[in-house]
Amino acid sequence: MGEGAVADEELTKEKHADELFKDFREVSITEFFRKNRAHLGYSGKVRSLTTIVHEMVTNSLDACEEAGILPDITVAIKEKGPEHYKITESDNGPGIPAAHISDVFGKMLAGTKFHRNIQLRGQQGIGISGVTLYSQMTTGKPMRIKTCTGDNKVVDIQLLIDITKNKADIIETKNYEEYWRGTTIEVEVKGVLYNLSEQGPFEYLRRTAIANPHAKITFIDPEGRKTVFDRSTNEVPKPPSEMKQHPKGLEVDDLVNMAKASKSRHVSSLLSTELSRVSGAKVKEIQELVSFDLNKNPRKLAWAEAEEIINAFKKVDFMAPPLEGLRPIGEGQIKKSVLSILNPEFETTLTRPPKVHSGGVPFQVEVAVAYGGKAGRVAGEGVKAEVMRFANRAPLLFDAGGCGITTAVNGVEWKRYGIKDFENSPITIFVNLVSVHVPYTSAGKQSVADDDEIIKEIRFALMDLGRRFQRFHSRRRRAIEQEARLNTLLKYSMELASAISKLIDRDKEQEKIAKDLEKFIREKVKFDEELLGDAESEEELTEAELEEVSEEEEDKTEI
Amino acid sequence: MGEGAVADEELTKEKHADELFKDFREVSITEFFRKNRAHLGYSGKVRSLTTIVHEMVTNSLDACEEAGILPDITVAIKEKGPEHYKITESDNGPGIPAAHISDVFGKMLAGTKFHRNIQLRGQQGIGISGVTLYSQMTTGKPMRIKTCTGDNKVVDIQLLIDITKNKADIIETKNYEEYWRGTTIEVEVKGVLYNLSEQGPFEYLRRTAIANPHAKITFIDPEGRKTVFDRSTNEVPKPPSEMKQHPKGLEVDDLVNMAKASKSRHVSSLLSTELSRVSGAKVKEIQELVSFDLNKNPRKLAWAEAEEIINAFKKVDFMAPPLEGLRPIGEGQIKKSVLSILNPEFETTLTRPPKVHSGGVPFQVEVAVAYGGKAGRVAGEGVKAEVMRFANRAPLLFDAGGCGITTAVNGVEWKRYGIKDFENSPITIFVNLVSVHVPYTSAGKQSVADDDEIIKEIRFALMDLGRRFQRFHSRRRRAIEQEARLNTLLKYSMELASAISKLIDRDKEQEKIAKDLEKFIREKVKFDEELLGDAESEEELTEAELEEVSEEEEDKTEI
Repeated sequence: MGEGAVADEELTKEKHADELFKDFREVSITEFFRKNRAHLGYSGKVRSLTTIVHEMVTNSLDACEEAGILPDITVAIKEKGPEHYKITESDNGPGIPAAHISDVFGKMLAGTKFHRNIQLRGQQGIGISGVTLYSQMTTGKPMRIKTCTGDNKVVDIQLLIDITKNKADIIETKNYEEYWRGTTIEVEVKGVLYNLSEQGPFEYLRRTAIANPHAKITFIDPEGRKTVFDRSTNEVPKPPSEMKQHPKGLEVDDLVNMAKASKSRHVSSLLSTELSRVSGAKVKEIQELVSFDLNKNPRKLAWAEAEEIINAFKKVDFMAPPLEGLRPIGEGQIKKSVLSILNPEFETTLTRPPKVHSGGVPFQVEVAVAYGGKAGRVAGEGVKAEVMRFANRAPLLFDAGGCGITTAVNGVEWKRYGIKDFENSPITIFVNLVSVHVPYTSAGKQSVADDDEIIKEIRFALMDLGRRFQRFHSRRRRAIEQEARLNTLLKYSMELASAISKLIDRDKEQEKIAKDLEKFIREKVKFDEELLGDAESEEELTEAELEEVSEEEEDKTEI
Repeated sequence: MGEGAVADEELTKEKHADELFKDFREVSITEFFRKNRAHLGYSGKVRSLTTIVHEMVTNSLDACEEAGILPDITVAIKEKGPEHYKITESDNGPGIPAAHISDVFGKMLAGTKFHRNIQLRGQQGIGISGVTLYSQMTTGKPMRIKTCTGDNKVVDIQLLIDITKNKADIIETKNYEEYWRGTTIEVEVKGVLYNLSEQGPFEYLRRTAIANPHAKITFIDPEGRKTVFDRSTNEVPKPPSEMKQHPKGLEVDDLVNMAKASKSRHVSSLLSTELSRVSGAKVKEIQELVSFDLNKNPRKLAWAEAEEIINAFKKVDFMAPPLEGLRPIGEGQIKKSVLSILNPEFETTLTRPPKVHSGGVPFQVEVAVAYGGKAGRVAGEGVKAEVMRFANRAPLLFDAGGCGITTAVNGVEWKRYGIKDFENSPITIFVNLVSVHVPYTSAGKQSVADDDEIIKEIRFALMDLGRRFQRFHSRRRRAIEQEARLNTLLKYSMELASAISKLIDRDKEQEKIAKDLEKFIREKVKFDEELLGDAESEEELTEAELEEVSEEEEDKTEI
C-alpha cells in the first residue's frame, strides 16, 4: 500500500474525494428504469411495442388463472401517426380493487406476486408500471384503466407516474355503475413500430395462444383486421397454488431470513411447517446431524447454525417437491395446440417431473419436438430449425442468444440422434419452463439465466426426445432401405427364376420358382430387419449413462 | 365487453379480486435484487466471481480517473474452502469521504454517477452494493472497507445491507491514523469458482489492462501466483468532463423534465445554457419554427410545446457534439496495447468522431482489427474469430449473444472484404463503445442494447477497417501471385534465351539475351500490377454509397 502514499505535488493536480462526492444522491427505482429503459425491454421500435403487449397480456392471464376464470382477452393496436400507436387491452378477469389500482399501474416494485412462492407469469411488480412510464415518456399521456370487480362499480382512472417519488400521479377518476367485470387498459405511445416480423405483437399473441390453449385471444391489427385465436379446451386450469420451499437447494441466507420472519416458536417447528417435505422423522434425522438443539428460538438462529442445518439437508433424503403447485401445459395439450398446426411427420412431447433449482425453488420442464411437415422456420428458400421458448407459458421472443434455454438446445448433440445439420433441419423445438421463480437475466424477462440445474434438466428432456426421434428416424430409414433392397432382389428374382427354370428345363415351373424365391427373399429381409432392430435398441443410453455424459460435460456449463 | 358479463353460477367457483389482492405489498430494491440476483450477473459460479472483481475494479478505475490519479490496483483471490473465496481489492484512488461510505456500499440506487452526463464505467449506483448483498447472502459475512482520502484519518468499517430498508447495517467501525490514501475492500463469498476460462477473473483483468494502458493492475491468484499487468503509458488521462445533452436525439420527455427542474427564467435561456451547441442564432431559428414565445417560463412548458421544440430540433442544423467530454482510448494506445501483444500480420485501428444516440446522448466508437499472428481465439486445434467487447474501457465477457456489439459484428459481410470464413479466421475484432450513458440490457452490464444508432456506427467503423483489410489482403495476394508469375516466366526465360541464341547462332550473346528478356518480363509484370491497382481502387465504397447500403439494410436492424 506504500505506492498509494501521497505526494504533495501530485495532490495539487488531483481532485479530492470531497469534491468528487459533492453530487452523491439517491434515485428512485422509476428514475432508474426511466434512464435504463432497455432493462425493461424498451429497445428497438418493434420490440418496445411487443413488450407493451406482453406486459398487458401476461397480467390478464395471471389474474384469470388465479381467479379460476377462462380468459377472454382482446388486444387492439391502432396507428395514430408515424411510429405512434394506441394500444388497448381488455380482459374478463377478476378486476382490480379500487384501493390498489394506483399502485398496480403507478408504482414499481409493488404487487401481489413478488414474495409468494407461486407460479405466475409476472413476478416482479415492475412490468405494467413500466408501460405507464413508457407511455408518459414518449407521448406525455397517462395510462387509462377501467376496471370492475363484479360489484357493478366501475372505476375509470387516468394516471401518470411521479418519477422521483415512484408513485402514481392521478389525473382523473370517474366512477359509474355498469354490469360488467374485467379490466380494460389503454396507452398511447410513440417511437414504436408495428410489423409482422417474428418478434412483433402478432407472433407474440400466436405463441401465447399456443401455450395457453384455454385462452381466447382476439387481436385487431392497425389495419383493422381481426384475428381470433380461439381456445382449444374449455377446461379452466386449476389455479396454481402457493408452494413451500423445498429443503434441497435452499441456501443459508434463505433459511436465516425465514427464521428472522418466522412465527414458529422452535426451529424444529419452522422446519416442519414452513418447508416442504420435512416430516417429524426428518427433523429427528436433522437433529442428529447438527451440534445445537433444534428447539431453540428461530429469531436467535445464528448464521453458523443455519449453515449446519443446510449442510444436514444435503445429507438427508427428502421426497421430491410436490406436483400440485406447478401448472405445466401437459403433454396432451401441447400435442393438441403446438403440434397439430405444424402437421409434422414426427412429433413427440415430454413433461418431466419437478426438480428444484437454487433456493429450493421447484421447477419443471416441458419439451416437444416436431419434424417435417410445417415444422421449422421458413428462411428465404429453405427451412431452418426453430426454437420456441416459453417461461410459465409466456413466449420469450427476444434475447435468444443470452438465454439458458438456447444454451440447453445447443448443448444437445443432435447428430447423435440422426439430425446431421440441426440448423438447417425442418424442426421445431418447443420448451416451456415452469417455475414459481424463473431466474430471468433482466427485468425485461426475455431470457433465462444459465442456471446449471435448469440447463441440465432441459438438455436431458431434449436428449430423451432425441432418442425417440432417432428410433423413428432409423425405423423410417430402415424401412426405406429395406424396401429398396427388397425391390432389387425381387427384380432379379424373376430373371433368376427364368434362368433356373431354363437350366432345369422346366419352363412351366418358372412361376412357382419365382414365387418361392420371392417368399424366400421376403422372409430373409424380414429376418435381417429383426436382427438389426435388436442390435440397435442396445445402443440406447440409460438414465445412468446420461448422468455420466452430463458429468463429463459439466465443465462446459459451469460458467 | 359483453362477454365478460358475470354469471352468478360462475362466480361461486371463482376467486374475488379482494382475495387475490390481500397480499399486495411493496418491496425494496434490495429485496428485488436479492431474489433476482441473475440481473446483477450472479448466475453461474465463474461468472459470479468475475462479476465481483468487475464491480470492484470499475469503481477503482472510475475514482482514479475522475481524481486524475494514475491507477495502481491490486486484486487478490484466496481460496478458503470448496467454492469459497475471499476477494481483496485495493487502489491508490481518492478514497471515500466518511459520510458516504455506508451509502456507497450498503444502499442501492445511490451514487455520484447516475444523474450526471459524464463518461464513467459505473453508472447505476447498484454494482458494489450488489457485492455486499452477494457476500451476505452466501456467507453471512459483512463487506470490510478501509479508506482514507489523504488526510491520514483512516476509516475501517464492516457492513451488511438491511434488505427491507435498503440501507447499510454497520457491524463495526474503527478509526485510526495512517499516512495513506486509497481504498481497500474485502468480501468472503461462497458458491463461486475460480478458473482460467475465458470468462474468469484473470481474463477479465487482462482485458481491463489492454483497454486501460495507464493502469497498473496486480493480480494474486488462489495459488499465490502474482501477475503484474504494468502500465504502458505514464500519462494521466484527462478526467472525463460532464457534458450537456445535444439537441439532436433529445426526446420530449427529457426536455419536459429538464424544464421542470430548470433554474432558467426563460425557455430560450434554458435551451442556450443547458443544451450543447445551441447558440443564440439557433434559438432564433427555433423560435421561427414554434407557435409560442420562447420567452415563457420553463416550469410552464406544456408537453405539446416541448414536442414542438423537439420537432424544430430535427429541422435545424447543429454542430456535432463536442469532443472533449468523451475519453476514447485513442488509436495510438489501442495499437500499442491491443495489437502489440497479438503480433499480427495486419492491424488497423479507427476511432470514429462522436455521434448521439437516443436522448441526445453523445457516444463514440473505437474499433481495431488484427489478422494473423496470435490474433483469434485458440479453439481445439484451430483458431476461431475473437470479438473483444468493451464499454467505456470495461471488458464485457458475458451475454455476447444478446449484445448489440455482436449484432454489429455479425452485420458486416466479411466476405466482401476477402474474409471468406469469418468464424474460422485468425482474426481479433476489438470494439470499445464510449458514452456518457451506455444502454445496457440489464443491471449486470454485460451487453449493450440493440440501439440502431450504435449498431450502425459500429458496423460502419468495422466496414471501414474491412476495406483496409481488403487492400492489404489483395496487395498480399497480388504480391504472391506476381511473384509466382515472375518466377515462372524467369524460369522459361533462360531456356528461351538459349533457344533464341541457338536459333540466331550467336551463342555468346545468350547471356545478354537472357538479361534483356528478364528485364522485359519484370517491366511487363510491374506494368500489369499498376493497371490492376488502379482498377481495384475504383471498387472502394464511398461514405455516400455506404449510407445507401445501410439504408437498404435498415429493415434488418429495426427491431
